[in-house]
Amino acid sequence: MTLINAYAAQASDKPLAPFQISRRGLRANDVHIEILYCGVCHSDLHTARNEWGNTTYPVVPGHEIVGRVLAVGKEVTKFRAGDLAGIGCLVDSCLSCENCRNGLEQFCLEGCTGTYNNPAKDGTGMTYGGYSKEIVAREEFVLKISDQLPLEAVAPLLCAGITTYSPLRHWKIGKGDKVGILGLGGLGHMGVKFAVAMGAEVTMLSHTPSKEKDAKELGAHQFILTSNDAQVKSVQNYFDFILDTVSATHDYNFYLAMLKTNGVMTCVGVPPTPAQIPAGNLIFGRKSLAGSLIGGLPETQEMLDYCAQHHIVSDVEIIKMSEINEAYERMLKGDVRYRFVIDMASI
Amino acid sequence: MTLINAYAAQASDKPLAPFQISRRGLRANDVHIEILYCGVCHSDLHTARNEWGNTTYPVVPGHEIVGRVLAVGKEVTKFRAGDLAGIGCLVDSCLSCENCRNGLEQFCLEGCTGTYNNPAKDGTGMTYGGYSKEIVAREEFVLKISDQLPLEAVAPLLCAGITTYSPLRHWKIGKGDKVGILGLGGLGHMGVKFAVAMGAEVTMLSHTPSKEKDAKELGAHQFILTSNDAQVKSVQNYFDFILDTVSATHDYNFYLAMLKTNGVMTCVGVPPTPAQIPAGNLIFGRKSLAGSLIGGLPETQEMLDYCAQHHIVSDVEIIKMSEINEAYERMLKGDVRYRFVIDMASI
Repeated sequence: MTLINAYAAQASDKPLAPFQISRRGLRANDVHIEILYCGVCHSDLHTARNEWGNTTYPVVPGHEIVGRVLAVGKEVTKFRAGDLAGIGCLVDSCLSCENCRNGLEQFCLEGCTGTYNNPAKDGTGMTYGGYSKEIVAREEFVLKISDQLPLEAVAPLLCAGITTYSPLRHWKIGKGDKVGILGLGGLGHMGVKFAVAMGAEVTMLSHTPSKEKDAKELGAHQFILTSNDAQVKSVQNYFDFILDTVSATHDYNFYLAMLKTNGVMTCVGVPPTPAQIPAGNLIFGRKSLAGSLIGGLPETQEMLDYCAQHHIVSDVEIIKMSEINEAYERMLKGDVRYRFVIDMASI
Repeated sequence: MTLINAYAAQASDKPLAPFQISRRGLRANDVHIEILYCGVCHSDLHTARNEWGNTTYPVVPGHEIVGRVLAVGKEVTKFRAGDLAGIGCLVDSCLSCENCRNGLEQFCLEGCTGTYNNPAKDGTGMTYGGYSKEIVAREEFVLKISDQLPLEAVAPLLCAGITTYSPLRHWKIGKGDKVGILGLGGLGHMGVKFAVAMGAEVTMLSHTPSKEKDAKELGAHQFILTSNDAQVKSVQNYFDFILDTVSATHDYNFYLAMLKTNGVMTCVGVPPTPAQIPAGNLIFGRKSLAGSLIGGLPETQEMLDYCAQHHIVSDVEIIKMSEINEAYERMLKGDVRYRFVIDMASI
């Protein structure tokens, strides 16, 4: 087996540092990819620091991966050497359960395999993610990437993109819908771009006044400062749909009150404490509180194709692999517009 | 003005007792109804005892009203003297806002007027409900009642019926859907009947073993005793839809875990404490927690017509007006199958 240069955290209190991993040999249905760019997701930080308590060290984070195919197994039909290719949050699932058959591999009833920090189904150990020069994955979990978009700005679509695209599609957001996007970070800025592209009237909901300018530049039609009572009052019973991208603890009821009758608020962030919801806040107005998790493989490909067609990419700041620990600290302060992406040439 | 015999609570600690009310004179669009039967809803008890803190005494409860038209105003076109007629939870709304125009008068943006304990829109005082010999209401809020069903068993359809019918229709329950009904009381027993009639596979979820026999007789295909681990395990990730009719505090997460991917749990009961929902319980499986409130007038008429067509009525126990305080005590103990209905000939 070849040793591959990567970056790993070795313990919860250790910074990420150079590390060598071995990748499995190419199987018949495998695609071998040279990683060119990898986006930096907040989940990477949570996992590197074991903040969810489930990290197996050493861990190589990264699940917003784009690169170029180096080689393919003999049964691979969708890719050949030289193609652009991407990998998101999943690298395996049973592909036979009801959810997998419906293209919802993220909800595989046998349990899907995450791109990093998950036990590989073949028992060969843990999966290693995209902070690495190369990756091998079975064809079904590799996405086609357009050559019409800047590659580094495509990388975050693999997680931040699909996480926001999927709920907007599932709840059929379209022309005339009033959509609120809660939180302007890596997820929120993609939510704004997609909702605008789908024809909705888009409002950014944020407690940070300085984000108004950015939100408008991203295409938001309206900005509501959530600490301004008059502005908040103006959007009571207002939205058909709110996409809640916030992972910090916040009061869901404050936003449920902004939904009009039959409105839906969908959460994609996981705050550390449970939401407290009086049933009356759902009953009056027949409102729904829902959740959504990334997206399945067919929908991820659909999203990438949609982005190519509509020229949608993430706003990114390119960093070197060695700057990852500093990037994490800046991410914690919200000091990123709106996604760090690692240039793997720097590893 | 004529004085009408009714029953009222005069204070939170007083039993209901005979009371005389005056009804407004017949307006051009009013229907004047002799009340024959009135169902007893748990809301009646909450209001009589000021358990929601919003009671204006004296209060005449009752919003499951059926009777016969005595007279109609000169502009009334849908009813004439001698017709059967019903009144549910609402007697007025603006009829011009977006929700009213969409037949969702229960969500009137100007505020709808409840059948009792609500200020009448004309400023003449509080509305008085169905524990009374007569009622006057504007035509738009009066329902047509079939003469093909036992009238006393129709009364509870006006609240318990529409409260369970509406969410099953809104979330498009039909053949092949796996539906869980949580709680076998006045609402739950109607939920079972409707879901079965709509073609769903219906499971009663209850912590009371003795209710299994009843649930099956009502048509439920399966009974899950929620204190039995093996039975509970058998319905993990199982239901497309759960109708939660329970008003006592309970752990929503226990039931969210029973929803399959894309499943919806809809609450129609209002527990005294907020539900605590970790976002992950909605995100994993793209689940929704929703609420629903009675139904609008067009849907209430649709439900009554559906019941006439499918011979669906409530299971009732007829009481005299003077037995109402004892009925409340029995209701608190769950000692009713499944709805008390007052025979107004007894007043």
